[in-house]
Amino acid sequence: MKNLINHQFRLAARPAGLPKRSDWSYTEESVRDPADGEFVVKILYISLDPAMRGWMNEGKSYIPPVGIGEVMRAGAVGRVVESKSPSFAVGDHVYSAFGIQEYTVSNGEGVARVDTSIAALPVYLGTLGMPGMTAYFGLLEVGRPKPGETVVVSGAAGAVGAVVGQIAKIKGCRVVGIAGGSEKCQYVAKDLGFDAAIDYKAENVRDALKKNCPNGIDVYFDNVGGEILDTVLTQINLRARIVICGAISQYNNTSPVIGPSNYLSLLVNRARMEGMIVFDYADRYAQAGREMAAWMAAGKLKSREHVVEGLETFPETLLMLFKGENIGKLMLKVADA
Amino acid sequence: MKNLINHQFRLAARPAGLPKRSDWSYTEESVRDPADGEFVVKILYISLDPAMRGWMNEGKSYIPPVGIGEVMRAGAVGRVVESKSPSFAVGDHVYSAFGIQEYTVSNGEGVARVDTSIAALPVYLGTLGMPGMTAYFGLLEVGRPKPGETVVVSGAAGAVGAVVGQIAKIKGCRVVGIAGGSEKCQYVAKDLGFDAAIDYKAENVRDALKKNCPNGIDVYFDNVGGEILDTVLTQINLRARIVICGAISQYNNTSPVIGPSNYLSLLVNRARMEGMIVFDYADRYAQAGREMAAWMAAGKLKSREHVVEGLETFPETLLMLFKGENIGKLMLKVADA
Repeated sequence: MKNLINHQFRLAARPAGLPKRSDWSYTEESVRDPADGEFVVKILYISLDPAMRGWMNEGKSYIPPVGIGEVMRAGAVGRVVESKSPSFAVGDHVYSAFGIQEYTVSNGEGVARVDTSIAALPVYLGTLGMPGMTAYFGLLEVGRPKPGETVVVSGAAGAVGAVVGQIAKIKGCRVVGIAGGSEKCQYVAKDLGFDAAIDYKAENVRDALKKNCPNGIDVYFDNVGGEILDTVLTQINLRARIVICGAISQYNNTSPVIGPSNYLSLLVNRARMEGMIVFDYADRYAQAGREMAAWMAAGKLKSREHVVEGLETFPETLLMLFKGENIGKLMLKVADA
Repeated sequence: MKNLINHQFRLAARPAGLPKRSDWSYTEESVRDPADGEFVVKILYISLDPAMRGWMNEGKSYIPPVGIGEVMRAGAVGRVVESKSPSFAVGDHVYSAFGIQEYTVSNGEGVARVDTSIAALPVYLGTLGMPGMTAYFGLLEVGRPKPGETVVVSGAAGAVGAVVGQIAKIKGCRVVGIAGGSEKCQYVAKDLGFDAAIDYKAENVRDALKKNCPNGIDVYFDNVGGEILDTVLTQINLRARIVICGAISQYNNTSPVIGPSNYLSLLVNRARMEGMIVFDYADRYAQAGREMAAWMAAGKLKSREHVVEGLETFPETLLMLFKGENIGKLMLKVADA
């Protein structure tokens, strides 16, 4: 594939706090020829997720860290442009953790074909991708909301939060989203149909929760951690379930993570706080995807993508997540087709 | 009952930090005659529990706070000395939340008869009382240990912790206790048969957990909160269960409770932290009591009481809990019989 040039972002240094340009190296290399059984993917859209910040840190976690010098890990969708594989044909659209780059050569391991007749390609990085699966399994398997219960979700305008709230509505719950800024709150309450949205930048979250959750909180799906988690803990009901999905407010701390001071509310309320990692549900992605696609077709589940063009914008675009600048699923568009 | 004088400790002020003498008023009154259906209890032993500190605070909790001027709430056992009740006869031994006093007149509501042919009276405040029930249901219903798993318990030499560890041994687990001081650790490891005891005052808890829990921690039963909870969180296994039973290290804080900084270990490990209150299991106390009495008879479950004599020592004796000065169930002995 001597005529194909691949550009990549590799991890150059482990960041302290927000990742800087100098924590990355931008590299260029030729795409190698596929061996027998392999194929070449032209990457079209790359998913940018809060979890990526964790993968940049050293230390034991649910997945090994990205090594220094390695192409940064990221989910992506692309198109097969050359194939010596019996399983993947030129023109197939595929998803995998292809990384922050323009091309990759794959033997098909961990690669899923995606059907662009069901949903547009970017949706497979969002509502029908990892964020959607995270929302689906985190809410339904860990949060276990019952009809009539009150579900609160933070990061409500983000890729996971938006799906959590919409599924909770489908399941007959009262749903309150927490997001930063009036534009996000409008999106959540008007476009997505949550019962209420709380602007944590403009409102007193405790007072707003009291007002908007008159029957207390039964399920809290936490994407942010920090003060908001602590505040929600003061408003939970007996036997509440708190799903710990993420803690974006804490990922770039240079000081220790702030733990929830009000965790003894778990004791008082016989409540439960439980972590979840979407990979544990991999054998059920297909079933969940079918159910969510049907909700989308029925107009009950809306998907929104926040697309930024250009691989080379990666270092700055990633920071939008931590600055709260995206509405919907943040992704890079790398190529047209 | 004009010839019976009752002394009482009443809550005089809501304490800041450790309760002081001046937070109590010591009062004296005659015991009134029982009406029809009522009986008079002479209190013999009074239970002193960490939870009492919480009952002294204003605010919503799992139980209303003790009101200013009210007799301090406490579990106690005593003997019926006068009765106009068809259900309780003179000589019966009874348990209820009789409070910090020498006598009470009861209509029998919330009063349980206890059988001193099965165990000595003080045991009904410990292993066969609320602490034992807390250990039994907290470990088995919330912690749900499986044979071969590793169970860690803090406050291991206390009334709850000692029973947690012994039941975990009965259930075939590896059991590691955390306690303060060599005397407590000897008691836990030698007398109670835990696999190991960690002296948090003398050892680096993280290193000691690594050494004594070579397969990680599956269940952590937390009585203390604070730094020890945070340290245990760094050593938990996939799908670990953390039972939040108490947080004695935090009850007398004048600054906010310290939340667990390492709570994101719940996420990484898909682990669960859940609160429990023993009262929820009241309809199963009798069954649990029978099972624990059988374990005691078989020598598998040992009970130890730390008895301090004299109602008037109450304000100082209560503080022993928070200074870690008791080994086994702390109680006041108020009268001989």
